[in-house]
Amino acid sequence: MCIATKETQMPTDAPFILTPGPVVTAREVKEAMLVDYAPADDFIRAATATIREYLVGLANGTGSYECVPLQGSGTYATEAAFHTLLPPDAKILIVTNGFYGLRLKELCDRMKKRNVLLQLPMLPPPSARDIEAALDAHPDITHVALCHCETATGVLNPIEEIAAATRARGVRVILDAIASFAAFDLDAPALDLEAIVLSSNKGLESVPGVGFVIAKRASLQAAEGNSASLSLDLHAQWAHMEKTGQWRYTPPTHVIAALATAIRIHEAEGGVRGRHARFHRVWHRLVTAMRQRGFETLISDDHASPIVTTFLEPADPHYTFPSFSMEMRKRGFIVFPGRLTASRTFRIGCMGRITDADVDRLVEAIDGAMQSLGVQDRAPDRSNSPAGSAALHA
Amino acid sequence: MCIATKETQMPTDAPFILTPGPVVTAREVKEAMLVDYAPADDFIRAATATIREYLVGLANGTGSYECVPLQGSGTYATEAAFHTLLPPDAKILIVTNGFYGLRLKELCDRMKKRNVLLQLPMLPPPSARDIEAALDAHPDITHVALCHCETATGVLNPIEEIAAATRARGVRVILDAIASFAAFDLDAPALDLEAIVLSSNKGLESVPGVGFVIAKRASLQAAEGNSASLSLDLHAQWAHMEKTGQWRYTPPTHVIAALATAIRIHEAEGGVRGRHARFHRVWHRLVTAMRQRGFETLISDDHASPIVTTFLEPADPHYTFPSFSMEMRKRGFIVFPGRLTASRTFRIGCMGRITDADVDRLVEAIDGAMQSLGVQDRAPDRSNSPAGSAALHA
Repeated sequence: MCIATKETQMPTDAPFILTPGPVVTAREVKEAMLVDYAPADDFIRAATATIREYLVGLANGTGSYECVPLQGSGTYATEAAFHTLLPPDAKILIVTNGFYGLRLKELCDRMKKRNVLLQLPMLPPPSARDIEAALDAHPDITHVALCHCETATGVLNPIEEIAAATRARGVRVILDAIASFAAFDLDAPALDLEAIVLSSNKGLESVPGVGFVIAKRASLQAAEGNSASLSLDLHAQWAHMEKTGQWRYTPPTHVIAALATAIRIHEAEGGVRGRHARFHRVWHRLVTAMRQRGFETLISDDHASPIVTTFLEPADPHYTFPSFSMEMRKRGFIVFPGRLTASRTFRIGCMGRITDADVDRLVEAIDGAMQSLGVQDRAPDRSNSPAGSAALHA
Repeated sequence: MCIATKETQMPTDAPFILTPGPVVTAREVKEAMLVDYAPADDFIRAATATIREYLVGLANGTGSYECVPLQGSGTYATEAAFHTLLPPDAKILIVTNGFYGLRLKELCDRMKKRNVLLQLPMLPPPSARDIEAALDAHPDITHVALCHCETATGVLNPIEEIAAATRARGVRVILDAIASFAAFDLDAPALDLEAIVLSSNKGLESVPGVGFVIAKRASLQAAEGNSASLSLDLHAQWAHMEKTGQWRYTPPTHVIAALATAIRIHEAEGGVRGRHARFHRVWHRLVTAMRQRGFETLISDDHASPIVTTFLEPADPHYTFPSFSMEMRKRGFIVFPGRLTASRTFRIGCMGRITDADVDRLVEAIDGAMQSLGVQDRAPDRSNSPAGSAALHA
């Protein structure tokens, strides 16, 4: 009996992933994982310290913010931020215009944190006035939590005006910047953010396995003992790291080594500005080519972010997402289905080591897939109309 | 300003790690991480399913137990088992004879789970009679939690006789087998264990980043909604995986690919029996060579496990652990300091891809390190006497 050999041979034709994270990483990033390190090794300590310093610098938080790493996905890091930074009497306004905002609600509910949900349509993005109205209706709210970029649609939410509204009322903001960090400017002290949550495998273009919370130092210092989870206690993780230079529990050493290489590439590319420019170039090339072929995007370009592009599915009855996805897989590409409010869509990520040639190969594969399916007309169903329609509001 | 390049260049002379996990992994295991996968990719689904099936088979649990994977270290998996499998009215007897047993107490305290600590000396190992006496004193205890192998000392605890005692009273056992799993026989149904906790980077000889809980299916089925943590909810993870074949949240795809290769190597080596035989051979070669040089082990061979060997530090005042550790690092080896009850010791792991030649190189390096330090006599301080001494009981 050989269980372990069954179906676990690595495919020689692994597909190219065009998802809004995890993303395609540089060869050097993966090659950094070819060494086994002890958790207390000099390299792991130095890499951890450098990564923390670099990330806090990206948020312009040097001096007043602390970057605390945590093993796990973005959801783990968000949960850790809630466990650690929300005191027992906190009441959270959760602002959502898509799928990932709802996960913030799910986290709060599970942790029995008092919360109010402000569920908005996908578009227009949440405004200062929306937030102010909710805060007026619930004057005991202490914190606001929301996504910077809603990965389900690609809509970028205007954190500047939202943060100005909350700051005026002394309400603290925990920002899920998992999809946007490292590719968009985020000035934590200027926005007076309580915390920013991010992960290794999106704009930083490293492998999945570690997340980070960049928290206001004073808030972190005051958070000792808040967390009902030991593993996800950011205060304890931070205090231990400050004291010893080490992670509290066995960290994913190979993942850290990969990220140390990934941030070097990020810096060499020109930091946030350079990364954003490349994502934007890929996004523009993709959207232009797809529109030439009759596809339409879910949202207009002025609200779109070059993280992920959401295309409306063709109305042609020959099209179904499973068959399209399979045809794309055959051609070596992974594309993502729509999520929730945007269920009649498919998504193509613009993050990761994607070249112009990759975009061209992708569009060619989409042509081939549509041909195989017998889809002539790529126009969407008009009744499934985009942009701000109440019908798209779950 | 270049932060990211500072001190994060990978060392070309990465040291050989002889720690009780993370361990040195096979080259093929690390090379499996050279591909980027989407979380929903066919390979990741198949690898996850195969890993789960293989691990539940190692515990002889096929049919009555479920293997639930969880991103994170062993501590995350243990916390997840407690969150999920301990109902609100649970009361836990924590049995400890070392450092890692105390972490079980720390977890329970943080989660506000009612618990009683049975703190025993390092040796003799906890007996059925110890457990029975504690259960007699606290008849409302519902669960027992303990370590199978206490990594701080290498003592292997007699789970067979402990499980017999708890079963007779209807008390459920959650076993932290992080250090022992895959190198020691563990028959979950015969021992009637509630759950076994393990991680990827010990006896399975893969990279760190994922843990597992092998839980009694009926108990897991009854655990819906127990967990106060969303990320660490094993029931939700299991239910989602059964339904979709996918992980709930972005998993560490590269770590999963590595583990799929590692279990293939484990099976090819003859499974638990083969792995144990190799660890034992390494342990025996090491202990023999060290005794020839005047070193003494903390515990006698009849209680020792070939996971980690704990040596008493030489009494010679020229010896200090930091200087010894630095001399070993110069020679390309990482050794571990003692922990808590065994603080005047150093530890050398016997797990991982260690060959006879590696052991010989290691012993030669220890000779060189001792010579550099000017340590002539390797005999320990007699007042720091080993084996069961009350003085070693924290």
